[in-house]
Amino acid sequence: MAKPPKNAISPTRAEDYPEWYQQVIRAAELAEPAPTRGCMVIKPDGYALWENVQRTLDDAFKATGHRNAYFPLMIPLSYFEKEAEHVEGFAKECAVVTHHRLEPDGDGGLAPAGKLEEPMVIRPTSEMIIGDVYANWVQSYRDLPIKLNQWANVVRWEMRTRMFLRTAEFLWQEGHTVHATEGEALEETLQMLEVYRDFAESYMAMPVVTGEKTPDERFPGAVHTYTIEAMMQDGKALQAGTSHFLGQNFSRAQNIKFQDKDETEKFAWTTSWGVSTRLIGGLIMTHADDDGMVVPPKLASTHVVILPIYKSDDERAEVLEYAESLKGELRAKTFDGKPLAVEIDDRDLRGGEKKWQHVKRGVPLRVEVGPKDIAKNGVFVGRRDAGKSVGTGRDEFLATAADTLAEIQGGLFDRAAAFRAEKTHEVDSLDAIQDLFAGERTAFARVPIGQSDEATAFLKQHKLTRRCVPSDSHDGGPCVVTGEPVAKRVLVAKAY
Amino acid sequence: MAKPPKNAISPTRAEDYPEWYQQVIRAAELAEPAPTRGCMVIKPDGYALWENVQRTLDDAFKATGHRNAYFPLMIPLSYFEKEAEHVEGFAKECAVVTHHRLEPDGDGGLAPAGKLEEPMVIRPTSEMIIGDVYANWVQSYRDLPIKLNQWANVVRWEMRTRMFLRTAEFLWQEGHTVHATEGEALEETLQMLEVYRDFAESYMAMPVVTGEKTPDERFPGAVHTYTIEAMMQDGKALQAGTSHFLGQNFSRAQNIKFQDKDETEKFAWTTSWGVSTRLIGGLIMTHADDDGMVVPPKLASTHVVILPIYKSDDERAEVLEYAESLKGELRAKTFDGKPLAVEIDDRDLRGGEKKWQHVKRGVPLRVEVGPKDIAKNGVFVGRRDAGKSVGTGRDEFLATAADTLAEIQGGLFDRAAAFRAEKTHEVDSLDAIQDLFAGERTAFARVPIGQSDEATAFLKQHKLTRRCVPSDSHDGGPCVVTGEPVAKRVLVAKAY
Repeated sequence: MAKPPKNAISPTRAEDYPEWYQQVIRAAELAEPAPTRGCMVIKPDGYALWENVQRTLDDAFKATGHRNAYFPLMIPLSYFEKEAEHVEGFAKECAVVTHHRLEPDGDGGLAPAGKLEEPMVIRPTSEMIIGDVYANWVQSYRDLPIKLNQWANVVRWEMRTRMFLRTAEFLWQEGHTVHATEGEALEETLQMLEVYRDFAESYMAMPVVTGEKTPDERFPGAVHTYTIEAMMQDGKALQAGTSHFLGQNFSRAQNIKFQDKDETEKFAWTTSWGVSTRLIGGLIMTHADDDGMVVPPKLASTHVVILPIYKSDDERAEVLEYAESLKGELRAKTFDGKPLAVEIDDRDLRGGEKKWQHVKRGVPLRVEVGPKDIAKNGVFVGRRDAGKSVGTGRDEFLATAADTLAEIQGGLFDRAAAFRAEKTHEVDSLDAIQDLFAGERTAFARVPIGQSDEATAFLKQHKLTRRCVPSDSHDGGPCVVTGEPVAKRVLVAKAY
Repeated sequence: MAKPPKNAISPTRAEDYPEWYQQVIRAAELAEPAPTRGCMVIKPDGYALWENVQRTLDDAFKATGHRNAYFPLMIPLSYFEKEAEHVEGFAKECAVVTHHRLEPDGDGGLAPAGKLEEPMVIRPTSEMIIGDVYANWVQSYRDLPIKLNQWANVVRWEMRTRMFLRTAEFLWQEGHTVHATEGEALEETLQMLEVYRDFAESYMAMPVVTGEKTPDERFPGAVHTYTIEAMMQDGKALQAGTSHFLGQNFSRAQNIKFQDKDETEKFAWTTSWGVSTRLIGGLIMTHADDDGMVVPPKLASTHVVILPIYKSDDERAEVLEYAESLKGELRAKTFDGKPLAVEIDDRDLRGGEKKWQHVKRGVPLRVEVGPKDIAKNGVFVGRRDAGKSVGTGRDEFLATAADTLAEIQGGLFDRAAAFRAEKTHEVDSLDAIQDLFAGERTAFARVPIGQSDEATAFLKQHKLTRRCVPSDSHDGGPCVVTGEPVAKRVLVAKAY
């Protein structure tokens, strides 16, 4: 194998950020473009990240009183005609099933046959079908609340796709709840926003701004949409999760009514909330570097990879025994309440190549052991978040491994938070905002800016979007475009 | 509430078996027909069963060296033209996506728009797309084996559907592996059959016959299809899982080639294997009774439900405290390597109604506690697999609860195995087989019967199918229809 280049990923972030992103995914074997247009194949290491995301979030959903269920993939077309704003929001990107058979096309190929009386839409989201089912389930206040989630695939026919961030099909979870009162539904919406924030920050080590979407950025049909927005390493914003208070809009469209304690009939209050495989894109763009992926220890399937180094069969036997005993002792330690996940990589590959594979995969800790280390009862440890490997005593390593993982987890968050802090600005004038985003520049700007057409046109012209009104936004000021008073600053950024 | 009827489910199994099945699903709240034709909504209790199935099987897949990945839902139509037998097998039941937009139809409604250049088929199974991806991954013997699984939804446009057993969309797992040698691929195929057998028998308490499908019942395109076949309580067979040795059929169609150690280029050997939400149907039809669902303890989300009984607020406080302490002590016990799952049901419902709900849900153990039990330091215990509840000491119950669950698990298997043994017959003549299946009669017949058209016509006439050549079938005899020699007896039955 050729000596690894100065950086394992080419181009680097500075050279070509979008291409760097694709190359990290390729080098870490997370995913690849699929034969189906706009779709991706999620490879085992990428899917393992998603499984870890799922497990953690699923526990959090259950701990907050939710259960899982499953609703159909295909939604009769007529259901989409019920909520006008909602269909307007999704009509342009719906995959439609129109036939239920294949027949020879008379030319050696196949053609669709068996035309359906009513076409079916592949769910772009499931409000329209789940609400219809809920309408049957809800009769009395005793039937409420309903708090369900589903893990599912959805299809949105996107024209410009990018692996994990925007694909025609993606995997997600969608929570759908029904409540007797507005207050309870609002509380649910905000509770799930907090579940997302905590997950993003505590597990993904990805700091997020929580806030409410401005009307132009709301989920189609929602009364309030709350979001978590993260800053990627190129200074752009990524919407990483949303929680929608749907008010009575969907319950009116779908006739979700109940008899309340006071014996009057009322429309229910509904919410929905979701995160998707897009989170994996966020993870990459928050932590990966010019050497490849960096996986936060709490989401890693492998915390420590042990690389045995030897030249002869005799050495091999000795080194593997040492490696196995090290593995056993490491697995007896716990991190984040679970035993350390340890892998011994004894594949027949050159040491340098093997080491670089694990660097590119983003394994938090690499441990090289060879006869010289064994003689000293030592190990040679490389931290993915630090520069070079260092020798240390075996016992010392064992005693500190779990703490080191916690330190890496915390360090990744701190680094990302410091980066965001540095690139976040309070902006109070048109000149300042134009300067901040001049050319290809990126940043998070907290700006008093209104909802007027002029303000929107200004943002569009600079390829900016309103990300949200941050939860901690309490001061306002005159709109930087129109001068009209604005109650709270808006987070403005270029976005994925 | 009205006094519960003699049996909680009406009709009973004896009165109307198919309707009983639907009513058990309804009473246990496992699923319901969906608004989408031929599809179902899997309700929380039904989905929890599927989650328990998933978790157990996923562990078994990983323990045998498999990893999960995810491939696209939509397969370009042209891919289906590659393997003739395969497309022949699925062409009649394919949902086809032909458009990617909705537009106003000029009549107040919506219509499909944006016609695709190439239609897409919703996967009925994923050989055609996964094999295409594998063809890129496989270059050298070093790239083999590939052992992946995916948990996914698939669509097969069935005309006659029945919840869990046959629905247009269903959830499943599909394993897809690639090997360098025929022997290794065959070993993989049989290993996964054994994983399925062990899961069916050890977790579902559902005895199965393992065997190989006869050519007429093979998976389209397979060289060998192995199956696990279970007997339902109506004496019919349910194909519960299949494992396919695909030989080089798909690798030739899809060009999955590798350079072997001997430096020659060879086609790889592939397998695929799957089980689906159909297993839940098998679980119901193996164990449920005229009072509703019966969940084997190893797949139960709730092992023990505690029903507090009281008349006043003072009593309530005392009873709930007792119930909570009982719950705490139960959760410190383990069954099948996990803490006992315990639920206290303190809903404001009449005791009888509440108790019957848990009977219908199939919770293995119900514990009623009221002031009189507390005075005696006792509990009143109902086993779902036995007739009436009995009083016992609190300490005795705690000491034996886990063993009782194991006894229930074993008892369910034994009961099903005894039922199957009683209804399984060695049959050696046409008269005997006609007698065995006369009218609506059902059974498992182990018969020497060949593959001739006459034999097939005879079976069809009696609504019988060849289920498999059982693994333990070693004797044969003259075909009961044609008299031609048959090497091994075939399992023949009416089937779902």
